[in-house]
Amino acid sequence: MSTVARIELTPVAFADPPLLNVSGVHEPFALRTIVQMWTDDGLVGLGETYASDDHLARLQAVADVLPGLDVFDLNGLRRRVSTVLAPGGIPNHQDPVDVVMSPFEVALLDAQGKQLGRPVVDLLGGAVRDEVSFSAYLFYKWAGHPGRPGQEPDSWAEALDPDGIMRQARTMIEQYGFTAIKLKGGVFPPEQEAEAVRALAAAFPEHKLRIDPNCAWTVDTSIRLARELSGILEYLEDPTPGIDGMAEVAQHTEIPLATNMCVVAFAHLKPAVLADAVQVVLSDHHYWGGLRRSQLLGGICGMFGLGLSMHSNSHLGISLAAMTHLAAATPNLTYACDTHYPWKTEDVIKPGVLSFESGSVRVPSGPGLGVELDDDALGELHEQYLRCGIRKRDDTTYMRTFHPAFTPNTARW
Amino acid sequence: MSTVARIELTPVAFADPPLLNVSGVHEPFALRTIVQMWTDDGLVGLGETYASDDHLARLQAVADVLPGLDVFDLNGLRRRVSTVLAPGGIPNHQDPVDVVMSPFEVALLDAQGKQLGRPVVDLLGGAVRDEVSFSAYLFYKWAGHPGRPGQEPDSWAEALDPDGIMRQARTMIEQYGFTAIKLKGGVFPPEQEAEAVRALAAAFPEHKLRIDPNCAWTVDTSIRLARELSGILEYLEDPTPGIDGMAEVAQHTEIPLATNMCVVAFAHLKPAVLADAVQVVLSDHHYWGGLRRSQLLGGICGMFGLGLSMHSNSHLGISLAAMTHLAAATPNLTYACDTHYPWKTEDVIKPGVLSFESGSVRVPSGPGLGVELDDDALGELHEQYLRCGIRKRDDTTYMRTFHPAFTPNTARW
Ligand SMILES: [Mg+2]
Ligand SMILES: [Mg+2]
Repeated sequence: MSTVARIELTPVAFADPPLLNVSGVHEPFALRTIVQMWTDDGLVGLGETYASDDHLARLQAVADVLPGLDVFDLNGLRRRVSTVLAPGGIPNHQDPVDVVMSPFEVALLDAQGKQLGRPVVDLLGGAVRDEVSFSAYLFYKWAGHPGRPGQEPDSWAEALDPDGIMRQARTMIEQYGFTAIKLKGGVFPPEQEAEAVRALAAAFPEHKLRIDPNCAWTVDTSIRLARELSGILEYLEDPTPGIDGMAEVAQHTEIPLATNMCVVAFAHLKPAVLADAVQVVLSDHHYWGGLRRSQLLGGICGMFGLGLSMHSNSHLGISLAAMTHLAAATPNLTYACDTHYPWKTEDVIKPGVLSFESGSVRVPSGPGLGVELDDDALGELHEQYLRCGIRKRDDTTYMRTFHPAFTPNTARW
Repeated sequence: MSTVARIELTPVAFADPPLLNVSGVHEPFALRTIVQMWTDDGLVGLGETYASDDHLARLQAVADVLPGLDVFDLNGLRRRVSTVLAPGGIPNHQDPVDVVMSPFEVALLDAQGKQLGRPVVDLLGGAVRDEVSFSAYLFYKWAGHPGRPGQEPDSWAEALDPDGIMRQARTMIEQYGFTAIKLKGGVFPPEQEAEAVRALAAAFPEHKLRIDPNCAWTVDTSIRLARELSGILEYLEDPTPGIDGMAEVAQHTEIPLATNMCVVAFAHLKPAVLADAVQVVLSDHHYWGGLRRSQLLGGICGMFGLGLSMHSNSHLGISLAAMTHLAAATPNLTYACDTHYPWKTEDVIKPGVLSFESGSVRVPSGPGLGVELDDDALGELHEQYLRCGIRKRDDTTYMRTFHPAFTPNTARW
């Protein structure tokens, strides 16, 4: 038996470009917590998750009760997390137990794999594909973070109109070989964003296309835009808020509706299925309770005729490895997964294992997740966390430092 | 890496008492196939399943293509089974892929556990309970198989009325300590079976009670009986055929309806949920695709607010071990599981690991399933299979050798 001996949580900050979205604009640094879980037989399991102060406090409270846990006891992990957290989720929100257990579950699976000399994908039922396809994740963005001369402009240049998006798409596809494209919308009036989508469709006729306005549109606007973009999109992601709103839009379009906003916890699946509100669920092991429970989500989607894709927040290499193992073991995850990975310039893992070829990442073949922590890089990004002063993601407040009257664009149009 | 080297399928027959049910009466022997799966590093994984000629042929066709499969590649197993079997399930029936893959999946998990020195329950996420509770499975029965003097009467005596059932219940509970009772009904008119249930309730007020008429009742009869038995039953199992019928009954009773007849494959879950037809699903890894997919079923039931119990056919010790590991790792399997185990007098495994105390079986702690094949016993029960001439279960034809006019009691009352 191998048990948890000690856990270290390290918050880190890594440089992030000024990507625009419905809530505002990405701050100069994105935050993550790196989980290192040592076992009594000298292995270390890795995990990665969010890093707001609230979340860090919950993670630490759980980390305090995990020593002694058998590394195979995923049920025991969940029980301990449930015991530590105050009971009761928030309606329409992620399940706190699933959110908090996730990085520890990944770390346990990493440790299991290292003990067995097996990649995590084997512990998830075996690879159904050797490489996992990701999408080019396009963002409207500023040239650089205003008032930070050293960083302005970043290598990606400005993208504030269809032409800017087209340039970004060309660069990203040239560099990474993606065969699917996702445009993060909800930033400009829908007609302008639809124009960008049509331009992408014309320039990349073989690529799968998606737009994600993050609920910036009303039901009527969503129905109208769905009509305009029919035949162009593989799916339309969260055009409008709520299961009821999505269900109404779904009745008026043949385009599958996808979500990582109205179905973000297991409790939301039944109402969504009953209302026929969404046709594709974006999984994300960071809030669906880790890799095994994301497989449960995948199984549920399969059984209920829902498509399965994968959501991403700004993340580092431990998460990319976990996402890749999960996707490789999930037969019905047939859409290209989302990832912010191309947008980051720093990481905590040693380079060489994860790279994009033809838009795909090869499943790491080493034991566990197959990635190794770079202690120096971890130390530097932790120093950066301490220096940068950001303690939770807040795109809206950051946007208001430049545009004081800004309010999020939810259902604005 | 450890891969499948060779598979041996051994059909066996074991003595079975004349248990009565909706279809007729159990034949003198029940059949099972024992799967032995050797790996290239000298381990053996065990599985157990049905043994009709049709099923054996399908098992053999799959066994022929498994050599070379990585023992961790459960997805690869499913893919190979899907490829070998002719496509297309039968509506309202079990999924042939899930049925055929099950014993091989169990054997792979057994081999994995042996390789890791871990019990199978650890591979399923860890034990949430150290022992698994089973129910006393009562049957109307004849004293012995007619015309087989050596075996008549068996040790259990006749049970053809409420008194007989009461005697059987006392004996079984005395010997095994069960705290839940299931009466197999569908044999006599519902009023007589209800009388037996009421007698059991009076004699065992602390025991959980179920009756399973196997669809012998019409919708109206089911509603009437549910009213009569309200407050006595923990659930009512398959009173009437079909999702629609069950849904109608469900509307008229507070008693949870359970099923192993109208929801027997993943494809049946959505219609059952949409119709609110059943409140408890009886899992059974033999037709739900093995242990990992039974966990998926458990997860789906949890998410959709369905209770989870466990179904049994006549089985031997390999299956009991697998059922126990599965139940121990399934948090929401809170009902006592069904088992025919007390009805059998022969087995293929070495004794000592599986026993009932206070109605529960302790989870085997050895590597893999934790049970070992007794080669002599396997040989004897295989000889018995060859001698007995039974090649598929057919309770109706056997009943007709004594009562030529017999027809199954489905929706008879
Ligand atoms: Mg989204
Ligand atoms: Mg039944």
